Amino acid sequence: MWNAESKLARPFRIPNSAFRIRSRVFEFTIDATCGAARTGTLVLPHGPVETPVFMPVGTQGTVRALSPGDLKAVGSQLVLANTYHLHVRPGEGVVERLGGLHRFMAWDRPLLTDSGGFQVFSLEGFRRVDDDGVEFQSHVDGGRRHLTPERATEIQWTLGADIAMAFDHVVPGGADETTARDALERTLGWLARCARKHAELAERWKDGTMERSFPRSNVPSVPQTLWPILQGGTHLGLRQEGLRRIQELGEWTGLAIGGLSVGEPKPVMYEMLEGLEPRLPPSWPRYLMGVGFPADLVTAVARGIDLFDCVAPTRNGRNGSAFTPDGPVNIRNAEHRADPRPLDATCDCETCATFSRGYLRHLFVAEELLGLRLLSLHNVRFLIRLTRAMGAAIRAGTFPRWAADWRRRYTRSD
Amino acid sequence: MWNAESKLARPFRIPNSAFRIRSRVFEFTIDATCGAARTGTLVLPHGPVETPVFMPVGTQGTVRALSPGDLKAVGSQLVLANTYHLHVRPGEGVVERLGGLHRFMAWDRPLLTDSGGFQVFSLEGFRRVDDDGVEFQSHVDGGRRHLTPERATEIQWTLGADIAMAFDHVVPGGADETTARDALERTLGWLARCARKHAELAERWKDGTMERSFPRSNVPSVPQTLWPILQGGTHLGLRQEGLRRIQELGEWTGLAIGGLSVGEPKPVMYEMLEGLEPRLPPSWPRYLMGVGFPADLVTAVARGIDLFDCVAPTRNGRNGSAFTPDGPVNIRNAEHRADPRPLDATCDCETCATFSRGYLRHLFVAEELLGLRLLSLHNVRFLIRLTRAMGAAIRAGTFPRWAADWRRRYTRSD
Repeated sequence: MWNAESKLARPFRIPNSAFRIRSRVFEFTIDATCGAARTGTLVLPHGPVETPVFMPVGTQGTVRALSPGDLKAVGSQLVLANTYHLHVRPGEGVVERLGGLHRFMAWDRPLLTDSGGFQVFSLEGFRRVDDDGVEFQSHVDGGRRHLTPERATEIQWTLGADIAMAFDHVVPGGADETTARDALERTLGWLARCARKHAELAERWKDGTMERSFPRSNVPSVPQTLWPILQGGTHLGLRQEGLRRIQELGEWTGLAIGGLSVGEPKPVMYEMLEGLEPRLPPSWPRYLMGVGFPADLVTAVARGIDLFDCVAPTRNGRNGSAFTPDGPVNIRNAEHRADPRPLDATCDCETCATFSRGYLRHLFVAEELLGLRLLSLHNVRFLIRLTRAMGAAIRAGTFPRWAADWRRRYTRSD
Repeated sequence: MWNAESKLARPFRIPNSAFRIRSRVFEFTIDATCGAARTGTLVLPHGPVETPVFMPVGTQGTVRALSPGDLKAVGSQLVLANTYHLHVRPGEGVVERLGGLHRFMAWDRPLLTDSGGFQVFSLEGFRRVDDDGVEFQSHVDGGRRHLTPERATEIQWTLGADIAMAFDHVVPGGADETTARDALERTLGWLARCARKHAELAERWKDGTMERSFPRSNVPSVPQTLWPILQGGTHLGLRQEGLRRIQELGEWTGLAIGGLSVGEPKPVMYEMLEGLEPRLPPSWPRYLMGVGFPADLVTAVARGIDLFDCVAPTRNGRNGSAFTPDGPVNIRNAEHRADPRPLDATCDCETCATFSRGYLRHLFVAEELLGLRLLSLHNVRFLIRLTRAMGAAIRAGTFPRWAADWRRRYTRSD
C-alpha cells in the first residue's frame, strides 16, 4: 500500500564518489507509512532487510546462547557485533585471517558493527578523551588502548560488516547541556574524519589496491556503508542542531540515534524522538541504538524508527524472563512448576512449539544450559514477530489501533 | 553378514508373564559378530536402537547444552536420564503431570533411566544403608529421602523410560572382597524385589487398572522393561557368581555391568570384561555403565559390550576438550588462535561443518555459551560415528584390524 509520503523514498545519492555504486545496494525503499510509522526494505551487500527490524546483539561475534542456525530459524535478518569487544579479543587481525566477521561467526546475512564509542564511554576502567580520540583500558587484559575515528573505521572495515558506525562520544542520560554539547561537537568532528577514512578505504577497495585476505564473494563493488550517530543527550535543541549538521556533512545511507536509553526516563527518550521525527529525512533508515523492550519498539516505531538493537531478549532470557503478549513471564516462578502450557501460545518458535512451562522452569531451577538458550531463542523470536506484526499493521493502515490493542494486552497483567 | 554365532540371537522368552508381549519389542537381534564384538538391533517401545550404541547422559532430563533437535541431528538413538536427580527435582509427580519423561524432555526416541543406586552411593552427604534400602540426603535441599528397590522401580515406572534399571549397591573401585560381596548380595536381593514390583506394575498396566495421566500413544502393551545390574567390584569370582545368580532369577531382556569405571585402573576393568564375556548369554544386550571415552568404547566393544553411557563427551566439551581421530584437542590452546580448519576434518556435525578452530577457541576464551554447545555437540557426534564405524567393521569382519588402526591414529599424538 503506497501513499503520498512514500514517494519520498526515492533512490538517493550516496555521500561521496566512493559510494556511487552500480547496484541498488544500501538503498532504502519505504513500502508503506501510517502516520510517522514506516515499513520498508533496506538492501545490504549480504541481503535485504525488512523494516521495522530488530537486530539481536552478538557482542563478541556470537549472540549469546544462540547459533547462526537458531538466528535464521527465528527470522533474524541483521545482527549487530561490537567493534570494541572484537578489537580487544580476538583482535580484528585474527578475524581477518579467519575470513572476516561474516565467515568468522558463520553468519551470511547482513551485519552491523557498533563503532566502539558506546563501550569505550560506558565500560568500567580508565579512559582519557581528547579531540584526537580515546585512550582506555581493555576489560580483558587491562592494557592501554587507543581508539580514534580513523582506527575505529579501519577496524570496522577489516571486520567487514555491511554497516559500520561512526565513532561517537556518548554521555550519560542526565548530562547537562554543556557536557552534551561538548560530546556532540566532538562526535560531529569525528564523523567527518570517519567518513574521510571510510571513503579512502572504499576507494582502495574499488581500485583493487587493497590486499584482502578474504574472498570478495557476496559483496558488491563497495562492501560496507558508514552511518552517522546523532548525539546531543536529552537536549532537543542540540539533537536538532546535530541532525542539521549531519545532513550538511553529506547524504548518508542511514542515521543512528545514539545516547538514548542510557539512563534517562523513558518519556524523555520519546520526547526526543517526537521532536526529531518531523526533521528526519524520510529516505534515511533510522536506527535507535540500544532499544529495546517490546513496548519501546512499539512506541518508537510510532515515532518513525526503523531499526533497533538490544541485549534485552538474550540477557532477560538468560535470567528466566520471557516476553509474552500478556507481558513478561518469570519462568522461575513456582506457579509454572507443573504447567503443561507453552511459554507463549501464540508463538511459533522451537521453544514454544516443543516445551512446557513446567519443563522450562525445571531447566532454570536446575541451572541447565538449555534453559538459557530456549528463553533467548523465544525472546528474539518474540521481537522479530513483533516487528513483522507492526509492518503488517502499517501496510494495512491500522497501526495506531493495532498498537493500542497490543499495549492494552501487554500491560494488563503488570 | 550373518555367521554361526548370530544364530544364538533368537527371540527369547521374557522373564515373567507380565512381559509376554505380542510385538517383538524389547527383542535384541544380533546382525553380525567378529570375535567377541557384535552389532545388532534392540527394539524398544519408542523405536529401534542399533548397537553398539552410545547414550548421551541427560542427568536432569536434559543432555547438557544440547536440545532434543541437536541430539537427533547427531544421530542419538537412546538417551539416559537419572532417576535420583529427577526424583529430588522436579519430582516424578511433576514429570508425570507434564506427560511422562518423554514428553517432559521432548524426546520421542528411546530412554533409559538409571535407578539412582549409583548416585545414592557416590554423591556427597549423609547416607545409611540397610537391607531394606538407603536413606540419604538430597543434594538439592538437604532433606532426608529414602529409596528402596520398590520405590526406585515405581519412580522409574512413573518416569516411563523404555528401559528401567534395578536398584543397586555400588562400591568404590578399590573395595575389598568382603565389602564387594556384601554389596553384591544386597544388589541381588534388591533385584528380585525390583522385578516383583515391576511385574506388578506391568500387570496393572495391562489390566487397565492403573491410572495414567499421560497418553499411551507410541507404547506397546508393556511400556518398559527392567534390566539387572551386575556388581561384584573388581573381584572376577564375585562377578561370575553374580552373573550366574542373575540368570537364575529369570531371563532378562538385557544386562548392565555396573561398578566399573569407578576409580579402578583401566586394565582391571578390561580384565573383568574379559573374564565375564565367555559366560554372558549372547542374546542379552550388554550395557557397560558409565563408559566412556573413545578408546574405552573400542576396547569394550572388542570384549562384547553393546551399550555405553558417559558424561565425558558433554563434560569434556564444556571444558574445551574435543575428541578427534588424532586424539583429544584442547581448543583453548593458543595454537588454534587463527586456525581456519575445522575441529575434526572427518566429522559431519554442525560444529565441524560450520566453524573454524579459531572461532571455537574465541568462544571458549571469551566464555561464550555457544562454545559449550558446539563442543558438546561434536563430542557426542564423534562417539556416535565411532559406534557406527565399529558396527561397519564388525559386519565387514575386519574389526580387530580396524580397531588397531583406529587406536594407532588416536594415540599417536599423545
